[in-house]
Amino acid sequence: MGELRAGVDLGGTKIQAVVVDADNAVVGQARHPTPKGDGPAGVATGIALAVAEAASQAGTDVQHLSGIGVGSPGAVDDAAGTVTQAPNVAPDWTGTFALAAAVSEQVGGSPVRLGNDVDVGTRAEFELGAASEFRSLLGVFWGTGVGSGVILDGAQWNGRGSAGEFGHMVVRLNGALCTCGRRGCVEAYAGRKAMELQARRMVEKGASRELFEIMEKRGRTTLSSGVWSRALERGDGLAQHLVDRAVDALAAGIASAVNLLDVEAVVIGGGLGTRLGEPYAERIAGRMQRHLFRDDRPPVVRVAALGDLGGAIGASLLVGTQASTPA
Amino acid sequence: MGELRAGVDLGGTKIQAVVVDADNAVVGQARHPTPKGDGPAGVATGIALAVAEAASQAGTDVQHLSGIGVGSPGAVDDAAGTVTQAPNVAPDWTGTFALAAAVSEQVGGSPVRLGNDVDVGTRAEFELGAASEFRSLLGVFWGTGVGSGVILDGAQWNGRGSAGEFGHMVVRLNGALCTCGRRGCVEAYAGRKAMELQARRMVEKGASRELFEIMEKRGRTTLSSGVWSRALERGDGLAQHLVDRAVDALAAGIASAVNLLDVEAVVIGGGLGTRLGEPYAERIAGRMQRHLFRDDRPPVVRVAALGDLGGAIGASLLVGTQASTPA
Repeated sequence: MGELRAGVDLGGTKIQAVVVDADNAVVGQARHPTPKGDGPAGVATGIALAVAEAASQAGTDVQHLSGIGVGSPGAVDDAAGTVTQAPNVAPDWTGTFALAAAVSEQVGGSPVRLGNDVDVGTRAEFELGAASEFRSLLGVFWGTGVGSGVILDGAQWNGRGSAGEFGHMVVRLNGALCTCGRRGCVEAYAGRKAMELQARRMVEKGASRELFEIMEKRGRTTLSSGVWSRALERGDGLAQHLVDRAVDALAAGIASAVNLLDVEAVVIGGGLGTRLGEPYAERIAGRMQRHLFRDDRPPVVRVAALGDLGGAIGASLLVGTQASTPA
Repeated sequence: MGELRAGVDLGGTKIQAVVVDADNAVVGQARHPTPKGDGPAGVATGIALAVAEAASQAGTDVQHLSGIGVGSPGAVDDAAGTVTQAPNVAPDWTGTFALAAAVSEQVGGSPVRLGNDVDVGTRAEFELGAASEFRSLLGVFWGTGVGSGVILDGAQWNGRGSAGEFGHMVVRLNGALCTCGRRGCVEAYAGRKAMELQARRMVEKGASRELFEIMEKRGRTTLSSGVWSRALERGDGLAQHLVDRAVDALAAGIASAVNLLDVEAVVIGGGLGTRLGEPYAERIAGRMQRHLFRDDRPPVVRVAALGDLGGAIGASLLVGTQASTPA
């Protein structure tokens, strides 16, 4: 089985850990809710526990892992081992926290590497997933927000450290208010959070409550990807309207990015992207056509192949690479 | 003075030739109207004559130039020496024409290299002009259409051969009809051709004719950059409205590109861009702020420093480099 390493996808609601072998096959995994209430330190403990469980499932012990990669939201500085501003993970995570050291300490000193969650997810699809035969890729993560990773000629493009804000490309000047406070961003139409706000506004104005009835039946307090998916299956008009609107915004944004960069492939991941899957990736590709300058030669559009584990597997790819400091 | 080489900016209305020395200083130049009526072959002759005149002004002869670079619209294949579909240059230039060989033959066999006009213009600003201290750049050419060149980590990014279609990024879903037939593109608002169509529509509906009066006084049949500039100076409301609209579209498109790529610098060139100059580059930068994800750290926005000669100087940079075939 050779050397084993761990990867962790750190999210606002869950910590997904995997242990993979030298061939990147998943040989252990664990999924825990993200600890709330103990701040960044509590999150570090949660990561260590999830990795320990995944390691045990893989028949080994955390101390014997060659390293742990963590994909995190917020501003990640791998060289410094820190994550700054990840309030979606822990409400009081507003400053800079030395996450790598905090995790490493709890797992017997195994080296811990950090990456941006969307970047490692894109890398995973590029190396091992839906885009493994291409050299240039736009990875679009359609979830609570809309994130992206850009790979050009085999290398991740970070710009001055903040590239990949696909979700805040403008698709409608003076358009809908985005959760970021700006107007007309892709995310203002396609982010699950923005979609839910719009759904609530429309229900207040008399639209069907079906989306929220499904939510309540499932004991949820927000419109999860599963709730959206179920409402679409049941033919709910409001869900169809808002998802169509999201598809149009994603299609315009992706086509804009392709007109600018002419990448070979686009991979659609994220909670909503993977849940809605192939039929909706096809819809996005279809709606892109009217905006593509080279509509005779569209990029390949695929659903993320690694699904839920993509982020964690991508994080494991950080182990053994060279650390870089953001600009 | 060392070795001399020539660069040519081939446009729909004029052929601009320069001869530069080893330090890229312009030592000779000539500007001729683009020959109409003799097809691509007539254009090749026009290029040879303009280069001969520029060489003579530089105190040399075309045969003694180390080479000639030509920046051309259309689909350029430098390795094959061909330009395909440049109907703006010659109406019957709809197929593939061996431009490099045709020019070379008329200048005593000097090697001729070809590049895309916008790409060589961007390269010139990157190497010698407004962005010479940066490593990543979006060059925006605001003229009849809106073109762009993308330089990332010092190298031009071509994608699969068609990158840089900034003018067709979508800034308003279901928005204004673009001259390309699509809707809501940057160029639908900012391209001089689209701006003129909109001005004509608005005059038909009763808007002030001042723009067209200036045009007529200057003996022109279209709204040139000079006409727009004069109308703005005179405070014409229609010109102000349409230029503001163009500025907003450019700002949204550039901010989208920056959100995706996080480049260090943006250079605004092209006929309108260089004519309207610094005050309008500042307006564009100002209007970008509301769309920039990292509005605390905007890119540097500058007017192209090489002005009218940028394309020709950039084309001269092709001489001595390695040819590449587009994808």
